Amino acid sequence: MRPADHDLAFLLQFKNIAWYEDGSVRILDRRVYPAQERFITCRTHGEVAAAITEMVTQSYGPFHAAAMGMALAANECRNRPASEQKAYLKAAANVIANARPTTARKMRTWTDDCERDAGSAIDTGESACDAILRGALSKFSRRYDRFDREARFLLERVPKNPVILTQCYGDADLGMLLRALRERGDDAKFFTPETRPYLQGARLTASAISDMGFDVTLITDNMPGYVLGHKHVDLFTTSADVITLDGFVVNKIGTFQIALAAHYYGVPYYVAGFPDRTHPDISSVTIEERNGDEVRHAMGILTCKPSVRGYYPAFDVTPPDLVTGVATDIGVLKPTELQNYQPAE
Amino acid sequence: MRPADHDLAFLLQFKNIAWYEDGSVRILDRRVYPAQERFITCRTHGEVAAAITEMVTQSYGPFHAAAMGMALAANECRNRPASEQKAYLKAAANVIANARPTTARKMRTWTDDCERDAGSAIDTGESACDAILRGALSKFSRRYDRFDREARFLLERVPKNPVILTQCYGDADLGMLLRALRERGDDAKFFTPETRPYLQGARLTASAISDMGFDVTLITDNMPGYVLGHKHVDLFTTSADVITLDGFVVNKIGTFQIALAAHYYGVPYYVAGFPDRTHPDISSVTIEERNGDEVRHAMGILTCKPSVRGYYPAFDVTPPDLVTGVATDIGVLKPTELQNYQPAE
Repeated sequence: MRPADHDLAFLLQFKNIAWYEDGSVRILDRRVYPAQERFITCRTHGEVAAAITEMVTQSYGPFHAAAMGMALAANECRNRPASEQKAYLKAAANVIANARPTTARKMRTWTDDCERDAGSAIDTGESACDAILRGALSKFSRRYDRFDREARFLLERVPKNPVILTQCYGDADLGMLLRALRERGDDAKFFTPETRPYLQGARLTASAISDMGFDVTLITDNMPGYVLGHKHVDLFTTSADVITLDGFVVNKIGTFQIALAAHYYGVPYYVAGFPDRTHPDISSVTIEERNGDEVRHAMGILTCKPSVRGYYPAFDVTPPDLVTGVATDIGVLKPTELQNYQPAE
Repeated sequence: MRPADHDLAFLLQFKNIAWYEDGSVRILDRRVYPAQERFITCRTHGEVAAAITEMVTQSYGPFHAAAMGMALAANECRNRPASEQKAYLKAAANVIANARPTTARKMRTWTDDCERDAGSAIDTGESACDAILRGALSKFSRRYDRFDREARFLLERVPKNPVILTQCYGDADLGMLLRALRERGDDAKFFTPETRPYLQGARLTASAISDMGFDVTLITDNMPGYVLGHKHVDLFTTSADVITLDGFVVNKIGTFQIALAAHYYGVPYYVAGFPDRTHPDISSVTIEERNGDEVRHAMGILTCKPSVRGYYPAFDVTPPDLVTGVATDIGVLKPTELQNYQPAE
């Protein structure tokens, strides 16, 4: 196994994202990775929700963490009567699903599944915690199959040996695309913005692409427009935190600006992800605003005078007219074709 | 005098930008301001050119530094025969004017003036160094008058109590606009991106606006598009490193992306500055590419794995169709009206 295979395995192994064991949940702290490989240990489901809020993990990490947090909640209430366990899990699901507002509805579908698996186990006297873990593993596995199909459909739109601009790409979407490019034998080149204030683009995206053996160039967040206009770029592609059924893409702040510049220069923008049936239209999405103090600091150092305010919207919204296509597990769809999307599984 | 008056005076006083005295040139190190107020001392004109290249000073600072570097060169060769002094100054002008490629032609007009002033002094046996300093002071003074006129014309396009988005605004352009807003009694609010990798937007722009008593909110460079779409913004305005006579604006990297988003949302974009007769069209402008290692670091810390490359174009180009108007010393012109621009002086 080459080092890059190991790193893809790392990306995809949920044990290294968030994992329940013996009454606690360990979450890889992506805020300091790769400079440090540090794990946060959560002893209660409330601590798991807090870790999600504090962005200890991001992209698909919070969904893994949510399921593990529900397993932890089931362990917390395991000695209570059945009806109390169910009520406890309902309350825990509320706490966990609402840890971040923009993805709350999508997260709710995950906690709903955990509640359902736990409910069946409680009714038959089995361990609800084990049932949640089994259900989550099965769901993760099916999702990775869907990511794999999605990446293969996207690859059909990607020319041989492409130059790709990404933006804070989701882990599984990115990992599957990189694997598909490797299998096709492509010599792909990537540009990726650093994605302030948390620098996920530098720390996670660029490092993961490099680990997989591809050429990757880091730029700051004010440079994608220039790169699109002055370098050869075949496509812009991102994951998405929410894809609404009316074709809007909610993703890491900065995606809209890049999509607009890509449109201006005629570079296609492909989103990789699954349309979200809990969001029939964009009006149902709340954009999370985080603590502006994060913006006023870089690497923990205040960058401006203390009298200056900070503002931190975590996501932005790209309208359908700037999106070339949405790569899903059933094919690449136009943003106007998402209304009737049904997953392959 | 209120503290803010003092700070405007600071902004405008070239003694605190770059200053020749007794055989050396002191330049305020804007790379660390305002966390530190540190000066770099240059003992030769070559060191002044190197300081400009290394971005010890930026915006209009390099033009001040260039004149002071020419005075230093005149001092270096003062005991040589007249013809050798002139040859020495010509060589020094070459070194200084080419310290940064994008502004080389504009810088050459400054060093040409210094050479002319020195030449007259050498011919009459006076001190060439003194003549360069006198000429530079007079030129600076006339330019500040022009900035003042420019700001007043721009103010006519700015609604009362405006919300203004800036991008790495030039010191004199910004200072004069802030002063004009204060005189009009406006309660202006500003948004300003931090401008990675050097963070001038956070360190200089945001701090200067705050010092002048205005409300200013810092955002990261991936947020202007969101702010333009989701907050009320009356106008986007920047200075420019070069304004070509065919209406293109060459400014700090990121300006193009913001201008494009402003155009998308119908927010006017006004550039403040003087069209550059040394650049009849955009094909004559070279975009400087700096060391990509700056992009891979934030506050001196590597943000990605060492195998990741960095790329650092220092400026970008905004085409005329994205520019609402250019505020000059003779009025606000359309980008199509710049061909016949003549300064008021």
